[in-house]
Amino acid sequence: MKLSKIASILECNFEGSDTEIIGINTLKDAKEDEVSFVSNSKYVKDLEHTKAAAVIISENLASQLPADCIPLVTKNPYWSMAILSKYFAPPIEDDTPSQPKIGKNSKVSPKAEIANSAVIGENCTILAHVYIGAQAVIGDNTVIYPSVTVYRDCEIGNNCMIHANTVIGSDGFGFATNEKGEHKKIYQNGNVVIEDDVEIGSNTSIDRAVFGSTVIKKGVRIDNLVQIGHNCEIGEYSVLVSQVGLAGSSKLGRNVVMGGQSATAGHLEIAPFSTFAARSGITSSIKEPGKTYAGFPLMGHRQWLKLQAKLARLIK
Amino acid sequence: MKLSKIASILECNFEGSDTEIIGINTLKDAKEDEVSFVSNSKYVKDLEHTKAAAVIISENLASQLPADCIPLVTKNPYWSMAILSKYFAPPIEDDTPSQPKIGKNSKVSPKAEIANSAVIGENCTILAHVYIGAQAVIGDNTVIYPSVTVYRDCEIGNNCMIHANTVIGSDGFGFATNEKGEHKKIYQNGNVVIEDDVEIGSNTSIDRAVFGSTVIKKGVRIDNLVQIGHNCEIGEYSVLVSQVGLAGSSKLGRNVVMGGQSATAGHLEIAPFSTFAARSGITSSIKEPGKTYAGFPLMGHRQWLKLQAKLARLIK
Amino acid sequence: MKLSKIASILECNFEGSDTEIIGINTLKDAKEDEVSFVSNSKYVKDLEHTKAAAVIISENLASQLPADCIPLVTKNPYWSMAILSKYFAPPIEDDTPSQPKIGKNSKVSPKAEIANSAVIGENCTILAHVYIGAQAVIGDNTVIYPSVTVYRDCEIGNNCMIHANTVIGSDGFGFATNEKGEHKKIYQNGNVVIEDDVEIGSNTSIDRAVFGSTVIKKGVRIDNLVQIGHNCEIGEYSVLVSQVGLAGSSKLGRNVVMGGQSATAGHLEIAPFSTFAARSGITSSIKEPGKTYAGFPLMGHRQWLKLQAKLARLIK
Repeated sequence: MKLSKIASILECNFEGSDTEIIGINTLKDAKEDEVSFVSNSKYVKDLEHTKAAAVIISENLASQLPADCIPLVTKNPYWSMAILSKYFAPPIEDDTPSQPKIGKNSKVSPKAEIANSAVIGENCTILAHVYIGAQAVIGDNTVIYPSVTVYRDCEIGNNCMIHANTVIGSDGFGFATNEKGEHKKIYQNGNVVIEDDVEIGSNTSIDRAVFGSTVIKKGVRIDNLVQIGHNCEIGEYSVLVSQVGLAGSSKLGRNVVMGGQSATAGHLEIAPFSTFAARSGITSSIKEPGKTYAGFPLMGHRQWLKLQAKLARLIK
Repeated sequence: MKLSKIASILECNFEGSDTEIIGINTLKDAKEDEVSFVSNSKYVKDLEHTKAAAVIISENLASQLPADCIPLVTKNPYWSMAILSKYFAPPIEDDTPSQPKIGKNSKVSPKAEIANSAVIGENCTILAHVYIGAQAVIGDNTVIYPSVTVYRDCEIGNNCMIHANTVIGSDGFGFATNEKGEHKKIYQNGNVVIEDDVEIGSNTSIDRAVFGSTVIKKGVRIDNLVQIGHNCEIGEYSVLVSQVGLAGSSKLGRNVVMGGQSATAGHLEIAPFSTFAARSGITSSIKEPGKTYAGFPLMGHRQWLKLQAKLARLIK
Repeated sequence: MKLSKIASILECNFEGSDTEIIGINTLKDAKEDEVSFVSNSKYVKDLEHTKAAAVIISENLASQLPADCIPLVTKNPYWSMAILSKYFAPPIEDDTPSQPKIGKNSKVSPKAEIANSAVIGENCTILAHVYIGAQAVIGDNTVIYPSVTVYRDCEIGNNCMIHANTVIGSDGFGFATNEKGEHKKIYQNGNVVIEDDVEIGSNTSIDRAVFGSTVIKKGVRIDNLVQIGHNCEIGEYSVLVSQVGLAGSSKLGRNVVMGGQSATAGHLEIAPFSTFAARSGITSSIKEPGKTYAGFPLMGHRQWLKLQAKLARLIK
């Protein structure tokens, strides 16, 4: 889409080279053929180094852009980005005339739905009522149980097992809100990438990224009814017990263990080999690896035991 | 069903006009062709104004009924109502010979199941393995992702998006229990009404009403793995983050925000523009609009921060 | 499988009678044609009475086995058991040529998938997109709503109702972890047994047992989005409200009531008629029947109210 078309969609002025734009991305990750946006003061620092062709921006910040980056000035840049996101959303289903590629010795139920542009490896078992969307890729030796939904563009590695009714790649929970309290959807144009040797339980939801990928690394174990928000990254061999909830963009190091019903806020980084007791509520990043935590607010596991003892005395 | 038939099902006496009854409802909402019941002292006050043709009632309360309302006296009115509810349950599937009505430009997967008596608007996308039950109505421009189940009689508005494996209209969690501890199902003969511009995530459950409707108003945003009990009402533009749980009959005003894993007890009213931090546990109604809360038990968000600081000092 | 084959798979020595082995089981439940294992000091006491033909064991414990029980000595018996479990896993789907047995007056949607070796009783309703796996057995008068998945070998009784998108029999969350932090799946070769008159909500997950059965007894009521771990046993008429989570091997007595979002740790025994308020976190067994609890850590409900009052004073 031409930059001039974008400016016209966003009803804003536009000066400079009318280049072809292929997508939206963060200031940090945007390439020369993408537009970006700034709506949160936290990201203003990324303005000076962005490679984006153009940035949706409020008037007062426009001067901080690099010289070769075109400002698209709007009153509410986040709302504008939400409007634009729809134009870069691929169709829900592709009208590819070809057949899906299915590797040898793979058994695919005739009651599964495999998009024409999907690719399935060798020795897979795909059971009834599974949906594999457009451009999705499944590796070798992977088992997908009934009624699993894999949205378009998502990737699942080799030797994975996905249990029934789990959803891979539903839209992240993203929207802009205006001053009247109305919401505008931010189309989630990223995907989910699941590496090799991952097992995921039943009725779990893993959301696709808004830009880029939500990533589940090699050897991870995820239980039933777990929520993984958009753009999370789960480190190798991490273990997420049932009903865990991860808000968007949190990154877990390798071998992190999260007990049942524990949860993280968004945009955190959790050091490798951290362990969280059931119901832990994690609201800040954890830098030191290998420690054990509990409680909400979170504290060291020992501290938590001490606090419980004190509270027990309080009620006597 | 004739009132005499109902009296015979409930094995109780019956005096008065043998009118035709079309359903069961609360004392407050029952019309002249419905029966009601009273089983909770909280609702005794509604007896004098009820328009119900007859009320299932214990002997000691029967005298409080209006003169033209027929008492159906039983030992355990709630249990009796549960017995009766089954007789008013429509069949799970209708044997309608006609085809479903599907609006122009709508794409319905041949692997979806659309009941014959269902109506789907224009420009909709209904993906594989979706189930749309009898008499269900879907508006225009609505997208329903794979393996979503919409139970019979439910309504979804225009411009909605329902993500994969979500369930709209499963039975509310209703039953009577007798003195032996056995349970009797209360058939949930109401429905779910979802207004326009609503987006709902994956693996979410929204229960149908026992009587009347569970209502999701215009512009609401619901994340993944959320539980909405029967007869809840979610106000315009409210936002329910992942793993929120609402017990039955709670009513949220407009633009209420509930953080991840927060929950409400049943039968509450929450003022508009209230915000609840993640894990909040709400056990009483909130009358003042626009405040922010946290914790379980619930308190003002600032108070909660103060309490955490005090507890932190306790363990030092 | 011959014991000599097992020894060769586990790369361990083997002396004694080369009997035919049909499965793996706990020390307590293993029969003469099964192998067992010991990996947790808690179970060392079961060594002397085991009837297992052979036990996977570390060198230092081997001498405690009964005389007629063959030791299979490995460095990491739990890891070895995980390796072996795969060999006793039945195929995901059976290649039975016959048709499933479907009782008279049962309505099965042509869009459901019923394995050839499954048995469905009389007067059942099986809706679209349901999956009933190999050897699964469904009783009479049972209703199974759309997109429910019943894994192979599971049993559901008479007069049950399973709401949409619920999963019965997905794999328990079981794996061994080695010193590098890598995981090895423990195949879950047990099943789920649901007795008569049980109703289960939508989007609930009930995991199959690793050995033996996960059991849901007569008359139980389970709400939406509930997690039941492998080898749990839920007593008659118990009530599990939405978003409850039960870790593996916990046993609830009859008429236990668990409020919304409450949870138990694994391997607990809960006395009959115990009641837990919403969000209770149960970490030890409860022996006295009929009491009411709240909080996490758990305490008597009255104590919890007292504690909340004290905390309220703290912040004033």
